[in-house]
Amino acid sequence: MFDISFENAKLFKDCVDAIVNLINEGEFEISSEGITLRAMDPSQIAMVDFKMPKKACSSYKVEGDVKIGVNFEDLSRVMGRARPEESLNLKLKDSRLEMTFKGKFTRRFNLPLLDIGGTVPKEPKIEFDANIKLNASVLKDSLKDASLVSSHVVLSIDKNSFVIEATGDRGDVLIETKKEETVVIAHECTNNAKAMFPLEYLNDILKGADSSTVITLYLKTDAPLKVEYPVGQAEIVYYLAPRIENV
Amino acid sequence: MFDISFENAKLFKDCVDAIVNLINEGEFEISSEGITLRAMDPSQIAMVDFKMPKKACSSYKVEGDVKIGVNFEDLSRVMGRARPEESLNLKLKDSRLEMTFKGKFTRRFNLPLLDIGGTVPKEPKIEFDANIKLNASVLKDSLKDASLVSSHVVLSIDKNSFVIEATGDRGDVLIETKKEETVVIAHECTNNAKAMFPLEYLNDILKGADSSTVITLYLKTDAPLKVEYPVGQAEIVYYLAPRIENV
Amino acid sequence: MFDISFENAKLFKDCVDAIVNLINEGEFEISSEGITLRAMDPSQIAMVDFKMPKKACSSYKVEGDVKIGVNFEDLSRVMGRARPEESLNLKLKDSRLEMTFKGKFTRRFNLPLLDIGGTVPKEPKIEFDANIKLNASVLKDSLKDASLVSSHVVLSIDKNSFVIEATGDRGDVLIETKKEETVVIAHECTNNAKAMFPLEYLNDILKGADSSTVITLYLKTDAPLKVEYPVGQAEIVYYLAPRIENV
Repeated sequence: MFDISFENAKLFKDCVDAIVNLINEGEFEISSEGITLRAMDPSQIAMVDFKMPKKACSSYKVEGDVKIGVNFEDLSRVMGRARPEESLNLKLKDSRLEMTFKGKFTRRFNLPLLDIGGTVPKEPKIEFDANIKLNASVLKDSLKDASLVSSHVVLSIDKNSFVIEATGDRGDVLIETKKEETVVIAHECTNNAKAMFPLEYLNDILKGADSSTVITLYLKTDAPLKVEYPVGQAEIVYYLAPRIENV
Repeated sequence: MFDISFENAKLFKDCVDAIVNLINEGEFEISSEGITLRAMDPSQIAMVDFKMPKKACSSYKVEGDVKIGVNFEDLSRVMGRARPEESLNLKLKDSRLEMTFKGKFTRRFNLPLLDIGGTVPKEPKIEFDANIKLNASVLKDSLKDASLVSSHVVLSIDKNSFVIEATGDRGDVLIETKKEETVVIAHECTNNAKAMFPLEYLNDILKGADSSTVITLYLKTDAPLKVEYPVGQAEIVYYLAPRIENV
Repeated sequence: MFDISFENAKLFKDCVDAIVNLINEGEFEISSEGITLRAMDPSQIAMVDFKMPKKACSSYKVEGDVKIGVNFEDLSRVMGRARPEESLNLKLKDSRLEMTFKGKFTRRFNLPLLDIGGTVPKEPKIEFDANIKLNASVLKDSLKDASLVSSHVVLSIDKNSFVIEATGDRGDVLIETKKEETVVIAHECTNNAKAMFPLEYLNDILKGADSSTVITLYLKTDAPLKVEYPVGQAEIVYYLAPRIENV
């Protein structure tokens, strides 16, 4: 049993948006602490790790731990109908998720739940060698530059700079951001790190971040990339497998 | 013979827009009273009844009653070229409709007329049991909510509320607007009324209404719905057949 | 060898945009005077003649004359990534065009060059009979009017007016702009002139002109049309073959 309300439905909408870009189906775990979800994307290349603390909700009643399996496309479509200033209440009712929006009048959606089962993927344990903090807009724009010539980018961080590179038949692109430049919010590097990632996944991962969101990238040579950003009072973390070129 | 002018071409444009969403071809009847048109949509599920009084025109000269058959898509495309602050003159010339826009310079379009013939459909005589007045934006938004789960909606009015419901495999939606809520401009009910209608037609009917337009819905159980709204100084009425489920 | 900089990358972007609408591949000639390009569109119906004087560049170093063959779609895609307030540097490096954008940080693109060869088309020598100057927005809008009924327009200039006409199955359009009307910036006519042109090419030719750009049209009966407009401190001229109807 649960009965959870958000004063502004937009917070939950933003969270769902940040998940749906990678995940088709997944299970929210609702406990006395808050709402979490960990799931792999269908191709098993990326993982989402989502955590919303109880305090992000305006009212939060849960009895026991509850798991609800949802189709994220359907959930996202419903959340897309949230209007400014509307509140949202979530309840379990007759094995369905009852979502009630209240603003100028009352709108109620009932979503069928999915029986997902299976085990929740584990969080990868990686000791990263470098990380950088940037506004999402800077990163998104650079990835668009790279997409002119390739479907993959090489990210690298050394003591002095963060570099995004792409190479293809139509030319090559190199974007260098020096540690001291104003767009860099933080830059740490214990060892040089460099790895290649698919652009499509990076774009999906960043889609849920609006332009002023601060993104943290954690890098280690030929290891998964960790991307982390806040969504209101919730937090979303993605892991993305590197492409390792055979020699 | 006729020679009719509109100080602002936009008024006639808005009328054409409200008609073209349902009707491919139709006949304007131009008499000493004004301009009217009554026509069924091609699938015979909906009817348009349009009336523009003579006083909506800045100059209005007609000799005898004239009928002009038009292709509404072509007419709508021409009217879509109207610019802000332009005037419009309509004339019959060599069996064509001559449309002259005047603003910074003069633009003249000649449209071939259609030979439509046939009889004009009669206005249905229905004693409705309930009606409600709402802004178009409220209604349009609620229909978008419903379209998440179905292609049909059930509309119902009772003493206290107006309800829009939709049900489908992906869940169900219920939007309740209580009589006393501020979005309700008027609410009358002599008998409870409830009927099901296709969303696609409802959307087409409302397309010509901008968000602040006041819509009146007239409802009677399992009878056609009547939708009425003003377009400037003209008035447009639609009738839409209900879907009656077999038992 | 060359090393050319633009204080604002947008100037070069606008030039590339005005060329790419007609030309797939072409050769920039870079001399001590400036940058030029003359090329036919793939169907040989239109010609572009582009001239950018040295003084439009913030720094300009060239040794000898250099020709660089470029794929305009690829170049246009790179220029599309220019951001407001960024500077641009162009260099030849390892038989590639190195393009460096500098703003908040540095972005470098390398474009492969094409081996184009062939002879540069000659500039047509035509003594035009009439010309008119108008804002691009007026002309673009009138061509949209004409496109409702045909894929071709007849342009004509006489002592008093400039007329655009189009005729088709769905009606006809006539747009008359009198010499004294305020939208006419200049109007000269030694002999009446009239010719027919394909709308698609006219639209492509005007695509690079923003709405306040002053366009000059030079007309002579059944001869190519000349269209001329400035792009910043550069100048672009197009010639478009007329359609001469067989009798």
